[in-house]
Amino acid sequence: MPNETLIKSQDTTSRGDVESVLNKGDASGTNNPDQHFDIHKNAKKYYDIEKAPSSMPEVHKWQREHIKVHDQSKDGFPLNIIIDPAMREMYQHVHAQGLTNVFDRFEQQEKIRCNFCSSGLSCQLCANGPCRISPKAPRGNCGVDADVMVSRNFVYRHVTIGTSANIFHAQQAARTLKAAAEKPDSGLKIRDKQKLLKYAEMAGLNSHEDANKVAVNFANWVLADMGKPYWEESAMVQAFAPPKRQELWRKLGIYPGGGFSEIGLAQTKCMTNLNADPVDFLLTSVRLGVINEYQGLFALDILQEILMGTQKIRAAKQNMGLLKQDMVNIITNGHMPLTAHVVIELASTPEWQEKAKKAGASGMQILGHVCEGQQLLNYKDTGEMSAYGGQEGEWLSEEYLFATGAVDLFMFDYNCTIPTLPLYAERFGTKMVSTHEVIRMPGTEVVEFKPEEMKKQAEKILEMAIEAYAKRKAENREIYIPPHISEGCVIGFSTESVKEALGGTWKPLIDAIAAGKIRGIATIVGCTTARYGQGGSNIFRITKGLIEKDILVLAGGCTSAVMQYSGLTNPQAADECGPGLKEICKALGIPPVLSYGACVDIGKMTQTAKELADALDVDTNKLPLVIGAPEYLEQKAVADACTAIALGWLVHVAPVPSVTGSDLVVKTLTETTETLGLGKLTVETNADKTVQIYIDHIEKKRKELGLH
Amino acid sequence: MPNETLIKSQDTTSRGDVESVLNKGDASGTNNPDQHFDIHKNAKKYYDIEKAPSSMPEVHKWQREHIKVHDQSKDGFPLNIIIDPAMREMYQHVHAQGLTNVFDRFEQQEKIRCNFCSSGLSCQLCANGPCRISPKAPRGNCGVDADVMVSRNFVYRHVTIGTSANIFHAQQAARTLKAAAEKPDSGLKIRDKQKLLKYAEMAGLNSHEDANKVAVNFANWVLADMGKPYWEESAMVQAFAPPKRQELWRKLGIYPGGGFSEIGLAQTKCMTNLNADPVDFLLTSVRLGVINEYQGLFALDILQEILMGTQKIRAAKQNMGLLKQDMVNIITNGHMPLTAHVVIELASTPEWQEKAKKAGASGMQILGHVCEGQQLLNYKDTGEMSAYGGQEGEWLSEEYLFATGAVDLFMFDYNCTIPTLPLYAERFGTKMVSTHEVIRMPGTEVVEFKPEEMKKQAEKILEMAIEAYAKRKAENREIYIPPHISEGCVIGFSTESVKEALGGTWKPLIDAIAAGKIRGIATIVGCTTARYGQGGSNIFRITKGLIEKDILVLAGGCTSAVMQYSGLTNPQAADECGPGLKEICKALGIPPVLSYGACVDIGKMTQTAKELADALDVDTNKLPLVIGAPEYLEQKAVADACTAIALGWLVHVAPVPSVTGSDLVVKTLTETTETLGLGKLTVETNADKTVQIYIDHIEKKRKELGLH
Repeated sequence: MPNETLIKSQDTTSRGDVESVLNKGDASGTNNPDQHFDIHKNAKKYYDIEKAPSSMPEVHKWQREHIKVHDQSKDGFPLNIIIDPAMREMYQHVHAQGLTNVFDRFEQQEKIRCNFCSSGLSCQLCANGPCRISPKAPRGNCGVDADVMVSRNFVYRHVTIGTSANIFHAQQAARTLKAAAEKPDSGLKIRDKQKLLKYAEMAGLNSHEDANKVAVNFANWVLADMGKPYWEESAMVQAFAPPKRQELWRKLGIYPGGGFSEIGLAQTKCMTNLNADPVDFLLTSVRLGVINEYQGLFALDILQEILMGTQKIRAAKQNMGLLKQDMVNIITNGHMPLTAHVVIELASTPEWQEKAKKAGASGMQILGHVCEGQQLLNYKDTGEMSAYGGQEGEWLSEEYLFATGAVDLFMFDYNCTIPTLPLYAERFGTKMVSTHEVIRMPGTEVVEFKPEEMKKQAEKILEMAIEAYAKRKAENREIYIPPHISEGCVIGFSTESVKEALGGTWKPLIDAIAAGKIRGIATIVGCTTARYGQGGSNIFRITKGLIEKDILVLAGGCTSAVMQYSGLTNPQAADECGPGLKEICKALGIPPVLSYGACVDIGKMTQTAKELADALDVDTNKLPLVIGAPEYLEQKAVADACTAIALGWLVHVAPVPSVTGSDLVVKTLTETTETLGLGKLTVETNADKTVQIYIDHIEKKRKELGLH
Repeated sequence: MPNETLIKSQDTTSRGDVESVLNKGDASGTNNPDQHFDIHKNAKKYYDIEKAPSSMPEVHKWQREHIKVHDQSKDGFPLNIIIDPAMREMYQHVHAQGLTNVFDRFEQQEKIRCNFCSSGLSCQLCANGPCRISPKAPRGNCGVDADVMVSRNFVYRHVTIGTSANIFHAQQAARTLKAAAEKPDSGLKIRDKQKLLKYAEMAGLNSHEDANKVAVNFANWVLADMGKPYWEESAMVQAFAPPKRQELWRKLGIYPGGGFSEIGLAQTKCMTNLNADPVDFLLTSVRLGVINEYQGLFALDILQEILMGTQKIRAAKQNMGLLKQDMVNIITNGHMPLTAHVVIELASTPEWQEKAKKAGASGMQILGHVCEGQQLLNYKDTGEMSAYGGQEGEWLSEEYLFATGAVDLFMFDYNCTIPTLPLYAERFGTKMVSTHEVIRMPGTEVVEFKPEEMKKQAEKILEMAIEAYAKRKAENREIYIPPHISEGCVIGFSTESVKEALGGTWKPLIDAIAAGKIRGIATIVGCTTARYGQGGSNIFRITKGLIEKDILVLAGGCTSAVMQYSGLTNPQAADECGPGLKEICKALGIPPVLSYGACVDIGKMTQTAKELADALDVDTNKLPLVIGAPEYLEQKAVADACTAIALGWLVHVAPVPSVTGSDLVVKTLTETTETLGLGKLTVETNADKTVQIYIDHIEKKRKELGLH
C-alpha cells in the first residue's frame, strides 16, 4: 500500500493568469458579457480573508485547524465552510468577478425561503391550489391535512424521482451490456466474466454457455424484471436480497415487483384526492427503497463491473491541479461512465494521442468530475485507460472548474451537471456535450447514447475536444489552474477487494470488531451541500470524529472527494485514528476511510454489509453500522435512505428534510419503522452531536451482539 | 329517445330532518364533536340568500337566469357559483354546522396563496432549497432559471402523476380481464367478445382461438407493452394511433415505448442538476401524452368495455334525490368500477335483495359517485345491474353527500375520494371501504382488490353494507335527502353508439358539419373546481354558449354531472341551440350535449375523432374540434391535455395552470407546439371569451377544410 508523500510542488503566487480571467466581466447571461468588472476594487475584500496555504500538508493542517469551530454562521460564508483548497481559491476568483455561482446563490435564496415549503406544508398539485397548511388553515382545499401533505410531498418530490433515476441507470447499464455482447464493433467489452457468470447463476440462468450469450440473457432478465407489474415479486430481489429481509418485507406488504410499475403505482397514489394515509405513503417509500437497491444501485454496480471490471485497491490523484495547460483537457461528468470509458480507452491509444499532438497539444487527458470521476478511478486499472488523469472535484465546484478556462470539452451523461454551466462554457471557452437523452442543456452539443455504436460516438467526442483545444490555443486564451493535487488517495474498495485484502475471508475484520479495535462501521456517503455549516466541512468534521473513536468509515459520492482533498483516504490518516483503528490501518496499510467510489457505489457497500451479516449469521439490522449522509442533497439520496431503512439500518441525514410539518411523519420515520424491524432515520446538523449518535447506535448494536 | 318530463315531485319545505342534522356540531376532527352549533343564529344568513326553486324545470330556469352574470367575485361565494340544486342545499346545511368543507376551505386558502407557487417559481426538490425565483434572485441555488423550474415542476408535479394514473388504471383493467378469462369463479365475465376479437386482431394476435385464450393473450400483450423499455416503440401505439400522427411523433423524437419506463425516464430528467432544457421537458410531456392515451385512456376504455360491455344510448337519472331512506344505500366512488360492477351484479340478485329486506330495508341499491357513477350508467344495460340506482354527484359534493346521513357504505377504488371523508363517515354513520391498495384512508375498512376472487370480495362488501344499514335503523339516525333528481339524462354516447345512431356511418354527421348545421365539435371534459367563477357554473355557461352557436358538445367527467343536473343532456335542450344544431338534435332525438361518461372515457372521444378524421381522410389536427377542460383540477387532466396536444388539437383550460412564471414555457405550450404539427394550449377564465376562442378555432379549421 502506498505511503508516499502527498505533496506536489505548487505555486500560489503567480496571480497573473487569474487576474486576466477576472477581467472578463459578468457571465450571468443577462448582462453584457463585455462589461468589465473592477477586480482591484474588490480583490482586497476577498483575498485578505486568509493566507492560502502553500503546500498540501499545510493545506491539511490548515483544514484541521479551520474546522475546530463548528461554524454554521452566515458571517464569513462560504469561506468558513469551503475546505477544498482549489474550490476555495476559484470561488474567490468567480465571486470577485460577480459571476453567478452556487455559494452566492445560496445566500440569495437563504433570504427568501418559505417556511411552508421548508416544512413540507405547501402543496402545488391541483388547480384548486396552491395550498398551505397552518394552525388557522389546518387543511388544504381538498381536505388534505399536514400528515398527508408532508408524506405525499416526500414520495413524489423525492422518493419516486430518486428511485426512477437509479433504476434508469441500471436499465442503461443492462442495455449497454447487451450491446457489448451482441455488437463486437461497439467498442464495448465484457471485462469481468466471472462476475457475469456468478450473477447469471444466481439469477437461475444457464451460466455454461458462451459468455456473450449469458450476457444477453442476463441483461434481458434484468430488463424483464424491471418491466414486470408491481404485483409480481421481483426476481432480482428474490435472487439477491438477504432471505431474512425478504421474509420481513413480505410480512409488511412491501415486497416490490417491477420497479417502473412500482414507481407508477406510487405516483398514482400521489394524485389529488387519492391515497390519504400518511403511514401508507411512508411504507410505500420503504418498498421503493427495496427496489431502488435491487433493480437500481446493486444492479447497476454489478452490470457496470461486468462491463468495466471490478475495482482493485490502489493509490490515485485528485483535484483541479490535474488539469494541464498544454493538454487537451476533457472532463467527463455524471454518474454513468458508459460512453466515457470508451472515450478514455480510445484516447489512451497512440493514434489519438498523436492526433492531439498534431493540434499542438502535448497529449490529451480525460479527468472525471463528481461520481463519474470516482467510478473511473476505480475502473482505471481494469482497462487500457492511461489517458484517464484522475478525479478533480465534487459537484459544488463545477462553475469554479469552468472558470479555470482549461476545460476544452465537458461531456455529461446524467445527473449533477448544474444548469448554469452553458453560461460558463460560453464565457470560458468550453465545448459542452450531452451523451445521453436524459439530459439536455440549451446551446450545447449532443452525441446521442448509442451503446451499439459507442466507439463511433466516442470518436466524435474526441474530435470535438481536439477542435476545442485548437481553438483555445489559436485564441491564446488565458487559463488559471489552481495548483492543488491530492496524491496518495487510496481508492478501489469494494466487497471483493476488501475481502481480498483481508486474505479472502471476513474473519480478520469480524475479529477486529469483536475485539473492539474497530467499534463499528459508518458509511459517510452522498452529496455535499452549499448550506451553512456544510460545503464538505460537515463531512470532514464528522469523519474525523468517527475515526478518532475507532469507527471505520466507508465513503461514496461527493463525500469521497472530500475525503480525498482532506487527506483522509491517505494511509497517513491512520495517525488520526483511535488506537484500535490505527493499529488495524497500520497493519493493513490502509487509510481509515475506505473510498468505495461514487454515490452509486452504495450498492457495493450494502453488499459488503450483507456478506458481513451472513458471515456473522445475523440479519442485516443487527450490524454495528450507521449509514450517514451528512450533506445529502437530492432525490437519489432520499431513495438510498429508504433502501437503508428497508435493510434495517440507522440512517443519519443533514440538512433537515422537508418533513418537519408533520409530527406523525417525523415519528414514523425516526421511531416507528424501527419497531417493525426496519431501520429508522435520524436528523442532526451539529457534527459533534452526530458523532455521538453514531457511537451510541454502534455501541447499542454491539451490546445486542454480546460484544463489549 | 325519451322526451318525458324531467321533474320528480319534491318537497323542499320539510326542514325537520335537516335541522336535527345541523344540531350535531363540528366534524372538523379537532373540535369537540358534542359542541353544539346554534343554527338559528346563522340560518337566516345562509338560507335567505335565495328561495329554493321547488321543481326541476324551475331549477333549470333558475340556473339559466343565475348564470347570466359571470360572477367570479368572492362576494356571495360559493352560492354565486353552485348550480347543482342538491349541492347548493347541502352546502348550506354543512356550512351552517361549521363543518370543514371544500368550498369553505377554498376561501380559507385563497387568503394565504403564495404567488411563487402559483406561477411555478418555487422549487422544493433538493436540500439546498426550497428556492424561489424573482427578479432579484433569478436562479435557484443549483442555478436553475425560471424556464427550467417551471417546466420541470410541470412534468413531475402534473404530467408524470397523471400519466402514471391512467396507465395504472389500464394495467388494472388488463389484470382483471386476465382473471376473467382464467378464473370462471371470479364473478367476472367477458361481455363484449366482438370488441376483444377486433382489438386482438389489430394487435396481431390470433383472434380465432377460444375467447378466453384470446383475452389472456390480449391482456398479456397489453401488460408486456407497458413493461417495455422506453426505447422500444410501443406496440399499442403502433396498432391503434393514427398513422400520420405516428410519423410526426417519430420525426419529433417523441414516439414512446413502454409507459412505465417512460415515466421513469421523465422522472429521472426531473432530478436536481439533471435535465435543464425547458423545451425538452415540454416535449417529454407531449411524449407522455401519447402513451397516456394508448397505454392509458384508450386501453382502459376498450379493456373495461370488453369486461363490462359497450355502452348504448338511453335515458338515466342523476342526483342525490336517488338516495332512499328505507333502502341500503351503497355509494361506489372512484374511476375504476371493476369491483363495483360485480358488487352491483350480486346486489341485483333476488338473494341479496332478500338479505337486505331481512335487515328491515325495502331493498338495496348502489349509486355511483363521480366518474365511477358515469361509467356505471353506461354499463348498466350491458349486465344484470338492476340494483344500480344511478349517478348522484360530482367530486365537489362528496362531503355534502355524506351529510345526508343516508349513505350506509361508501366504497372507493381510486381517485377522487377526498381526505376529509373519514371525518364525515364517523359523524354521519357511513362505513367506508377501500377496494384497492392504491388508496388508503386512516380508520376505514379494506376489501383488497383481488380480481381472481371478485365475487367473494363483493359479498364481503354487501354484508358490510347491510350491517351498516341495520345499525342506522337501530340507532334511528336522522337523515335528510335533498329532493332533487334529474331525469331524462341521455347517456351512453361512444364511438360505436354514435355511429350506430347515425345509421352505421359517419356520413350524416360529416354532412351536417359540411353544411354548417353543426359548425364543429367541442369536448367539455374533466373536473369541476371550487374556484371563484367555477364550481360547475363555468362549464354550464360555456356549454350554453357553444350550443347556441351550433357547436356540438361531448362531455366526460364531472362535466357530465354538470350537464345532467342542468338539463343539458335532456333532448329538450335542443330548444336552446342555434338553428342548425337544433334541427339535427330534433331529427335524431338527441340532446346537444352527448355524455360519453367519465373523464376516463376521453379515450372514446379521441377514437370518435380518429374515425371522423379517417372518414374525411385528413390528419386529426385538421378537424373543426376544440378540447375544453374549463374547470380542470388534477394531474390526469394535465396528462390528457398533453394527449390532445399530441393529437394536434387546441386545448382550452381554466383555471390558469402554474406555468405563468416562464414566458418561454407559456409561449411553447400556447404557440410553438402548433408550429410543429402538434396542438396547443389556450388559457381563458372568462366564459364568453372562451366561447369565442372555440368558435374562432373551429371556423379557422373549417376554412382550412374548405368549408363555409
